[in-house]
Amino acid sequence: MRILTFKEFMSTEKDSYSAAYEEELDTSVLKIIRQVKEYGDGAIRSYTEKFDRVRLDNFVVSKEEFAEARDLVSSSFLDAIKQAKKNITDFHQEQKEKSWFITKNQGVMLGQKVTPLEKVGVYIPGGKAAYPSSVLMNVIPAQLAGVEQLVITTPPQPNGKINPHVLVAAQEAGVDTIYKVGGAQAIAALAYGTETVEKVVKIVGPGNAYVARAKKWVFGDVAIDMIAGPSEICIVADESAPPSYIAADLLSQAEHDELASSICITTSRVLADSILIEIEKQAAALERKDIIDKSLDSNGKIIVAKDLTNAFEIVNEIAPEHLQLMIKNPTEGMYSIKNAGAIFLGNFSPEPLGDYIAGPNHTLPTSGTAAFSSPLGVYDFVKKSSIIHYSQEALLETADHIIKLANTEGLTAHANSIQVRKDDSDANTQHYQKNSRNSD
Amino acid sequence: MRILTFKEFMSTEKDSYSAAYEEELDTSVLKIIRQVKEYGDGAIRSYTEKFDRVRLDNFVVSKEEFAEARDLVSSSFLDAIKQAKKNITDFHQEQKEKSWFITKNQGVMLGQKVTPLEKVGVYIPGGKAAYPSSVLMNVIPAQLAGVEQLVITTPPQPNGKINPHVLVAAQEAGVDTIYKVGGAQAIAALAYGTETVEKVVKIVGPGNAYVARAKKWVFGDVAIDMIAGPSEICIVADESAPPSYIAADLLSQAEHDELASSICITTSRVLADSILIEIEKQAAALERKDIIDKSLDSNGKIIVAKDLTNAFEIVNEIAPEHLQLMIKNPTEGMYSIKNAGAIFLGNFSPEPLGDYIAGPNHTLPTSGTAAFSSPLGVYDFVKKSSIIHYSQEALLETADHIIKLANTEGLTAHANSIQVRKDDSDANTQHYQKNSRNSD
Repeated sequence: MRILTFKEFMSTEKDSYSAAYEEELDTSVLKIIRQVKEYGDGAIRSYTEKFDRVRLDNFVVSKEEFAEARDLVSSSFLDAIKQAKKNITDFHQEQKEKSWFITKNQGVMLGQKVTPLEKVGVYIPGGKAAYPSSVLMNVIPAQLAGVEQLVITTPPQPNGKINPHVLVAAQEAGVDTIYKVGGAQAIAALAYGTETVEKVVKIVGPGNAYVARAKKWVFGDVAIDMIAGPSEICIVADESAPPSYIAADLLSQAEHDELASSICITTSRVLADSILIEIEKQAAALERKDIIDKSLDSNGKIIVAKDLTNAFEIVNEIAPEHLQLMIKNPTEGMYSIKNAGAIFLGNFSPEPLGDYIAGPNHTLPTSGTAAFSSPLGVYDFVKKSSIIHYSQEALLETADHIIKLANTEGLTAHANSIQVRKDDSDANTQHYQKNSRNSD
Repeated sequence: MRILTFKEFMSTEKDSYSAAYEEELDTSVLKIIRQVKEYGDGAIRSYTEKFDRVRLDNFVVSKEEFAEARDLVSSSFLDAIKQAKKNITDFHQEQKEKSWFITKNQGVMLGQKVTPLEKVGVYIPGGKAAYPSSVLMNVIPAQLAGVEQLVITTPPQPNGKINPHVLVAAQEAGVDTIYKVGGAQAIAALAYGTETVEKVVKIVGPGNAYVARAKKWVFGDVAIDMIAGPSEICIVADESAPPSYIAADLLSQAEHDELASSICITTSRVLADSILIEIEKQAAALERKDIIDKSLDSNGKIIVAKDLTNAFEIVNEIAPEHLQLMIKNPTEGMYSIKNAGAIFLGNFSPEPLGDYIAGPNHTLPTSGTAAFSSPLGVYDFVKKSSIIHYSQEALLETADHIIKLANTEGLTAHANSIQVRKDDSDANTQHYQKNSRNSD
């Protein structure tokens, strides 16, 4: 954990990471994708045996396994999941979009039709760890959007089972199709389909480097949520913030993995020192101290800023996944924030509150992508279609503009599509006038 | 142009195209990106010389060039552009999203803050062709979203100039920074910045294979709109539709390029035959007949469907970029459509109306991606941040749920972040109780 000045921070350069062929990783990911495309379930079984060290003839979670999971989880876990589900549903309900239309003179109607995606696949990391919270955060917005077919895929444990907490969370969220498949092979199965796994149109959910890279490759053939990088927290604190809270929150971010970034920006040098002392004190008692130490050593920073204006400038530069404003007037501070995945206001809104229970999504843009990406939401599970209706009268009135623009672009068949209708109407008018004259 | 039955169509297989390293294309695209990253403007100048056959020391469009362009375009073109701008603005205005929040008991506030992207780059194809309509369609939604810095990049003509119609459209739309740079080098410059070109956070706009592939590679470091494939039209027609209109609209799609698809699905075999005759008649007089012939030969189809239910099933399978419903009750038909970029209703709403003047965006999901993507819109130029505020009371009430879930996931430092606040409050309560007792 280092203490930096504003100037020192601003002079460090950020790296880019996407635009390169990563020889080793990409070669194996592309091979896995090709194999799954060609051999389907067979390829999945052999990769599962290779990577997850278990041979599964049937990799669909059975009703019995769901029932068994229910017996294995505690009632306090179930209570917590139910509360989380309720809060997540309440919040995401507000994100639902309506189709709309406007009308103009002469029978013109223009609109936007909102339609749920038909089939979505959710990837949930597995193996040793279990993330029931990720199940809720990915599934509930999709359900609210009205997605018809929703499946989960997650790597099996070495005994061929899925963690019971994940199964119960899935059941609570209303998903009953779960495949015991992980890694790039899961992404390929969802993107292209196999005998067992139906092809989806969008893949969401976090994963390791293989999963992330496979998502980058299948992107275009299917939609993906985002390519998740390491997790970050940025805490802006003034002298009013309790150093023990800040330390605890930085530590909670650091335990995710060694690449996670825990950053505090403060206007108080005294606070900076107290935070360091608190971190040392609290870290000693934490289970994942090894990961925490490595993470803080490489990516932990306390930046001392002249004032809050300075601090917010740094925040907008970092575009952190999580931002906590632990300052006297956090709500006012929020107005100055342009780039952040989620903004937590005040001393009693720590990041884990958002990870598990508050309601907003915990799938957030990482690695500075909050500058251009949004939290996962109901809007990620719908698509829009434009609607255009013109009457004959309205089209004819604007026909010359269209013909002019089409000809300017050298697209004369476009002009012809309008001209045909114009000529036809002229002919009808003449026909009508002729008939009128005849009957005079 | 072939006539197929429903069954014949459904049995043809669709290809996937993304998940492969395209040795030749990707190698040169990645080389260009690396060179631009390393040598900046110098790399841009040498690629412009190589690909666009012109040496440009200064590749920023000057004020004089803008003024000169204004003198070169006709007033009827300017009128058409102004009308298009007005209609596009009117429609996209309706897409603007508001930030929102909800409050709950105990001082809980949750919300979603909508913020415009700061810097956006628009790619406009150039060289021989000129697309002033694409300038409006890409720039206006960004302007309405509130994007602060908007630049256009487009390849120069061999004389080092930019097409005057493009310049005037840009000026009308309010953009005054235009770079004379095309291809993968333009995408790299926007994604990573050079001495002259400032790095943006999102790149939008259509382009050739180099541009599309470069966008796939930089995706993640910056946002991109979509990877555009060849253009498609699908027309659903019953016996009430005039064959001459349908023929004209299929031809207008076919002139885009040899890979464009023109598909008509009709319930009337008689109509199918009349359309073929009309196509032959009209095509003879069209400038781009060579491209049209090739396109219709490879990708032109008339599918005869049993009924409209059948026809809509095919539409949802194709997920066309453009859909025209030329049937007796097009608005009712629209309700059955799940997958389409834009839906044109009735005999007087041909696709070129939407390309140029109606108002909705003409940047639409191609190659079946309408199953999961939306037209370009104001929503593409903003991002969202979640907002979470809990009071001490609210946090403490739900603290045990959070601690339970964090511990279930093995993230004990997350649990600690809540525990620290709980302990602190317990200590304060005891302190308060002790003080109360003292004062008894």
